[in-house]
Amino acid sequence: MGVSAPPGPDTLYIAVVGGGGDLPRRQREVAEAVGRAVAQSGAVLVCGGLGGAMEAACRGARAGGGLTVGILPGGARGDANPYVDIAVPTGLGEARNALVVRAADAVVAVAGEYGTLSEIALALQAGIPVVGLDTWELGRAGEPDRAVVRAADPAGAVALAIDLARSARR
Amino acid sequence: MGVSAPPGPDTLYIAVVGGGGDLPRRQREVAEAVGRAVAQSGAVLVCGGLGGAMEAACRGARAGGGLTVGILPGGARGDANPYVDIAVPTGLGEARNALVVRAADAVVAVAGEYGTLSEIALALQAGIPVVGLDTWELGRAGEPDRAVVRAADPAGAVALAIDLARSARR
Amino acid sequence: MGVSAPPGPDTLYIAVVGGGGDLPRRQREVAEAVGRAVAQSGAVLVCGGLGGAMEAACRGARAGGGLTVGILPGGARGDANPYVDIAVPTGLGEARNALVVRAADAVVAVAGEYGTLSEIALALQAGIPVVGLDTWELGRAGEPDRAVVRAADPAGAVALAIDLARSARR
Amino acid sequence: MGVSAPPGPDTLYIAVVGGGGDLPRRQREVAEAVGRAVAQSGAVLVCGGLGGAMEAACRGARAGGGLTVGILPGGARGDANPYVDIAVPTGLGEARNALVVRAADAVVAVAGEYGTLSEIALALQAGIPVVGLDTWELGRAGEPDRAVVRAADPAGAVALAIDLARSARR
Repeated sequence: MGVSAPPGPDTLYIAVVGGGGDLPRRQREVAEAVGRAVAQSGAVLVCGGLGGAMEAACRGARAGGGLTVGILPGGARGDANPYVDIAVPTGLGEARNALVVRAADAVVAVAGEYGTLSEIALALQAGIPVVGLDTWELGRAGEPDRAVVRAADPAGAVALAIDLARSARR
Repeated sequence: MGVSAPPGPDTLYIAVVGGGGDLPRRQREVAEAVGRAVAQSGAVLVCGGLGGAMEAACRGARAGGGLTVGILPGGARGDANPYVDIAVPTGLGEARNALVVRAADAVVAVAGEYGTLSEIALALQAGIPVVGLDTWELGRAGEPDRAVVRAADPAGAVALAIDLARSARR
Repeated sequence: MGVSAPPGPDTLYIAVVGGGGDLPRRQREVAEAVGRAVAQSGAVLVCGGLGGAMEAACRGARAGGGLTVGILPGGARGDANPYVDIAVPTGLGEARNALVVRAADAVVAVAGEYGTLSEIALALQAGIPVVGLDTWELGRAGEPDRAVVRAADPAGAVALAIDLARSARR
Repeated sequence: MGVSAPPGPDTLYIAVVGGGGDLPRRQREVAEAVGRAVAQSGAVLVCGGLGGAMEAACRGARAGGGLTVGILPGGARGDANPYVDIAVPTGLGEARNALVVRAADAVVAVAGEYGTLSEIALALQAGIPVVGLDTWELGRAGEPDRAVVRAADPAGAVALAIDLARSARR
């Protein structure tokens, strides 16, 4: 957090969602780079507060001088990964996925399992933009659904997320 | 509900999820047939309690002599469609999607929008079997994800859901 | 449930709240009598689905031919007491107290601990009438708060709750 | 936030709960002084994020150089009062009262209405210490319940809350 100004009314909140367990090294690096870019853009990073992509993103955000918020499924603040600045233990179980998404102006999804898919879906249902990096592909009736905006790399994903968040706010 | 025995400890609960708005006639008929088959199997039908596929499924279940439970996003019981027997207004907004799924031993998804996709994902995350009828197609890294079991018709979907629910319980 | 008509749009839902653990015999008897009176009035009984006063109230309601709904804090339907007809496992922990209250047109509180106090408070906050039997006494600035309507016995408590629920609906 | 170090694993979170509407001047001053003392103790201030005592406490915390977290009932971050640094819109309605409490190591209650009473009760149910300033008085069977620790003034309340929070953590 260090040198950063406190968040104000114009500060954007970007959620980073992705797998919670042991990740392939590349996914971890991508999530970390996304977190760093979120911090460098001046946005607050929101996530589910646990390990895997959540921890990597928080580590990146901290390295980038940003503030991180972890919205935890359990009731204990101590479940948060060590790079979470503000931990919100909800005790809601996976119903907290809806809260991670609601807390954000845009979502960046990095790969991920079914929990990540639920967060992508809840964001799209709520009209919150989602940018994807190697994440779920969706289709209906044989046609791809293109609501998740694809990005080529972490910096591009965050730039897109920031742009989409600003447009959605206006 | 009429002639049916009260639910007991062995009664299965099957959630039917699908689009909430005006549906194409065929989707409505499919959802209604799914609801009827759920009732005829002796299971309790769980849904989100509103219109569209939820209402069609409840109408079918009632015609089939079954019991219907609607878990509503808002705080007013009166929001439930007229075929809901037991309405549970949660006031949780779309976080209630997680509750629809948790209340069920298996989920049948009929087509649907992003809310339905979130319910599919939350069920798969929780290890609850999902059977799909013309619903979302999922993929990762160019490979289809086959966790949603495809069915050819309403009766087949419910038979599959009942089988999968029984296996998951054992 | 047996002989009762299915719930319809005019059916009232009455929540019975009280202690969840081992209860003194008298509290158990009071809760059971409340449950029976709820059933005999034609209302659906809602509760938190666990033991203690919740179980006693459900047992009474079943003996009275009524329908019982248990809104559980955990994620497993099997946590419900054996007299719950419709179990809704929420996985929300004690945040489900708000849902027990929201599902009801009026609340009858039988003695109880802090969880019961939270349900009384959440009901009063939401404008849902609360009738008390040997339950919490509230005061502010040295003055008693009389929002909880006191009843002398189970039958009187349920009659009052039904009256207040009807007035609140109008 | 300004000069304060970022929160770490040893940082305490203190919730301040109280009435949300127009408050008598004295209550506002008390809540503001509580917020300032929380900040000066190095703890993070948690609250429900809206007006009244929540806003006064946040204003005090900001004046004291502290960090404030607002856990909102609605889904819009913009509902937060202007002194909330980190706003978490939950969309859960009053079920979010349970989250305000869970996020805290101790709770300071300043006067308040039924919502405040629910937060006091939810904290006591969860074993989280509660310190009261001119707040609800509780009794059962004609005997006062002394679980809410009474304080004489804002500084004393926060000192007590910090002590109790440290003891509860050990």
